[in-house]
Amino acid sequence: MNQEQPQDTICAIATAQGGAIGLIRVSGPEAIGITDCIFTPAGEPVKPLTARPAYTLTFGHIKNAEGEIVDEVLVSLFRAPRSYTGEDATEISCHGSPYILGRVMQLLIDHGCRPARPGEYTQRAFLNGKMDLSQAEAVADLIASTSAAQHRLAMNQMRGAFSQELGKLRDELLHLTSLMELELDFSDHEELEFAPRTELQALSGRIERLISRLVDSFATGNALKNGIPVAIVGETNAGKSTLLNALVGEERSIVSDIHGTTRDVIEDTIQLGGATFRFIDTAGIRNTTDAIEVLGIERSFQAIRKADIVLWVIDQTEAKKQIASLSGKVIPLCEGKRLILVLNKSDLGTPDTDVSTAGFPPGTQTIRLSAKNKAELDKLQVMLVEAARLPAISSGDIIVTNARHYEALVRALEAIRRVQKGLVSGLPGDLVAQDLRECLFHLADIIGQVTNGEVLDNIFEHFCIGK
Amino acid sequence: MNQEQPQDTICAIATAQGGAIGLIRVSGPEAIGITDCIFTPAGEPVKPLTARPAYTLTFGHIKNAEGEIVDEVLVSLFRAPRSYTGEDATEISCHGSPYILGRVMQLLIDHGCRPARPGEYTQRAFLNGKMDLSQAEAVADLIASTSAAQHRLAMNQMRGAFSQELGKLRDELLHLTSLMELELDFSDHEELEFAPRTELQALSGRIERLISRLVDSFATGNALKNGIPVAIVGETNAGKSTLLNALVGEERSIVSDIHGTTRDVIEDTIQLGGATFRFIDTAGIRNTTDAIEVLGIERSFQAIRKADIVLWVIDQTEAKKQIASLSGKVIPLCEGKRLILVLNKSDLGTPDTDVSTAGFPPGTQTIRLSAKNKAELDKLQVMLVEAARLPAISSGDIIVTNARHYEALVRALEAIRRVQKGLVSGLPGDLVAQDLRECLFHLADIIGQVTNGEVLDNIFEHFCIGK
Repeated sequence: MNQEQPQDTICAIATAQGGAIGLIRVSGPEAIGITDCIFTPAGEPVKPLTARPAYTLTFGHIKNAEGEIVDEVLVSLFRAPRSYTGEDATEISCHGSPYILGRVMQLLIDHGCRPARPGEYTQRAFLNGKMDLSQAEAVADLIASTSAAQHRLAMNQMRGAFSQELGKLRDELLHLTSLMELELDFSDHEELEFAPRTELQALSGRIERLISRLVDSFATGNALKNGIPVAIVGETNAGKSTLLNALVGEERSIVSDIHGTTRDVIEDTIQLGGATFRFIDTAGIRNTTDAIEVLGIERSFQAIRKADIVLWVIDQTEAKKQIASLSGKVIPLCEGKRLILVLNKSDLGTPDTDVSTAGFPPGTQTIRLSAKNKAELDKLQVMLVEAARLPAISSGDIIVTNARHYEALVRALEAIRRVQKGLVSGLPGDLVAQDLRECLFHLADIIGQVTNGEVLDNIFEHFCIGK
Repeated sequence: MNQEQPQDTICAIATAQGGAIGLIRVSGPEAIGITDCIFTPAGEPVKPLTARPAYTLTFGHIKNAEGEIVDEVLVSLFRAPRSYTGEDATEISCHGSPYILGRVMQLLIDHGCRPARPGEYTQRAFLNGKMDLSQAEAVADLIASTSAAQHRLAMNQMRGAFSQELGKLRDELLHLTSLMELELDFSDHEELEFAPRTELQALSGRIERLISRLVDSFATGNALKNGIPVAIVGETNAGKSTLLNALVGEERSIVSDIHGTTRDVIEDTIQLGGATFRFIDTAGIRNTTDAIEVLGIERSFQAIRKADIVLWVIDQTEAKKQIASLSGKVIPLCEGKRLILVLNKSDLGTPDTDVSTAGFPPGTQTIRLSAKNKAELDKLQVMLVEAARLPAISSGDIIVTNARHYEALVRALEAIRRVQKGLVSGLPGDLVAQDLRECLFHLADIIGQVTNGEVLDNIFEHFCIGK
């Protein structure tokens, strides 16, 4: 657990630098007493925080050792166990000046607080039983969420939907294990069989299907969390970059209006239909010389391999020529992916109208548009959302989004499949029980019941400070 | 006042993007009711915010129109007039996700809130009589403060010390004005003189000295607020940039440890002795060719003209040569400034030891150091603080830091000086009274009593959103 003093009181600035208001969180056994040392309530009666009820706000002044006012603040008061961490806690709402926040932090440290490590508040909430590990991990996902789907999945997980699903699985497994172990206890009496093998097989089959469904959901969960990879391929003069700019640029202005998001953050990513689409750079196919073209095509090939959706941009004024020159190379790579032929430059008329999708993978779609004039872009956006084939996520859905959970579920799946095989092949009960216990172990790992300190530290150090 | 609906309810995200926690402020007559529309308290009893006492915190959920949970939040409750704006208000503490904050803002707007303009919270506090204009202006200074001195001045001003000083001045002026106007009322009886002219002159002289002291304090206030300009001049091989990097770099690492300040923000600025020093780029003097050298020296000349303090960096292994080649150009520009000769490269021994300050401006100091080895840098820092000649600011000091206040005080000073002249030259009482009223007007302008709407809007639009 790598915690030197589990009982110390921690403090952190929980807001980003640069706002009107800055919030400092204090948590631990001395949180209220230490805050009292530097805080003077305004007005009468001057009652210390220790004498005030929880879930109240107190206006007053933070003063330094010389009695000089550092800031006018509001202090929120929480008492164990009714706080985020489950400990006594205060939150000091200051003016958002880095200088002031630094001074208040220093005063707290002078009076015995320790600066919190990243994620330490949530880690304490986990250690104090306020949430399990998968819920704690969802807190970071929630803060990082930028689309409706990401937000919904993280909120589900934080509120314990995934933990409940795992709980049901564990109950089923424990039932199966208890039946197996009961047999082992009476293994001297070989004639005893507490549950018929067929019943055990049916039970393990049901567990296998439940775990299997969770494992399969990760493809969707990962796409929702990290974005659906989309490759834009085609010859340079087909209008690839114009299309990308039209798609991303439009979204950019919308996003920055709402959230003030910077260009850097959402580079080449767009939100459509509540999901994130991540464009893979395919700048490369050039017609200048053959040598360079070969290199460029190779880079586009790599982009296609990484993509779920391929937008093949074609200059529709010479569609047949462009398709003929690249189809032999592009089509074989699109197996199992969604291919959309974007017949661009509709503003130049339609001299080369008939484009057949014969020979293309099943489900290939075509759309005629003008990236330059942004004509029919909305139709392409609808196509992208459909091509993503993402199920609509409702509040109750359990979708695995976390790679650590996925790894654990894959191992649990392997174990339960060994159990199934063992039951079929008549493996000795103690060996089957060992696989059952391994399956249980991997599920317990997800909610943090058996997780070692190093893994925990690794999880929480990726949180932000103050959370 | 350019306010369409003074009675509408406003909302804003009051924290910067990217932290663990994001805070949304709601203020106005419908603040509590609108928050109730989107907020469901957790636990029993499910009492709406309207039925809860002020200065309490309530944990619960923000839900959208479909009843889906957008976030788990804490709501702070304030009732008029005991809030920052003097209106009913709530503060919604959310997870710091831009997506979530955007959704909550949208829900508030859907229920009748209007997004707040920059500074609108403080503007409302001013309009509702929670603070005068000079106090409101200090809020922005407080948030922008990055040094102890800036912080102390802004805090003094926000807490009303400057307003009280102005109040005393106005009392004196009103006394003088009433004496003058009493005379005017009885001007038919020329023999009446309610106050002897000598007494009026003594009173106006005292007022003149008070205003004059405030006007003079602006030089200090401005230096503290915007930083003390320091030029580093000298030949390129003397080690100018090494010295700047040593000074700034050292500070940088300290600042970034405490506040996470980025390199960009504090470029070429350091904090010493509670004050800000701002280095003016003087890269320019080169020995490559004469033509370029002339250009470079001209740029350094400009830097010296803008500076309060000049650091002339000299390679002490050839001090006499370097001083001889530049002193004719540098020394005449240093009149009235503090000049420090930095004899650099002490690590290379001291072959050229005697440097006389004869012929230099009075008060010129010399220091021998090694910028490369950072030897004696601390002594130079002490010299800079001394050279800044800034008075130690204590909590009670009244220092004018705001250019608008300075302009108003200069006009008030001109008016009171006309009063003085008028009293001496026996100007008719009504003309003297007119100058007195003008003096009063300019003082009233500072605290916002007579300030027009355009000026007000201009002041508050430079605040950040959410303050």
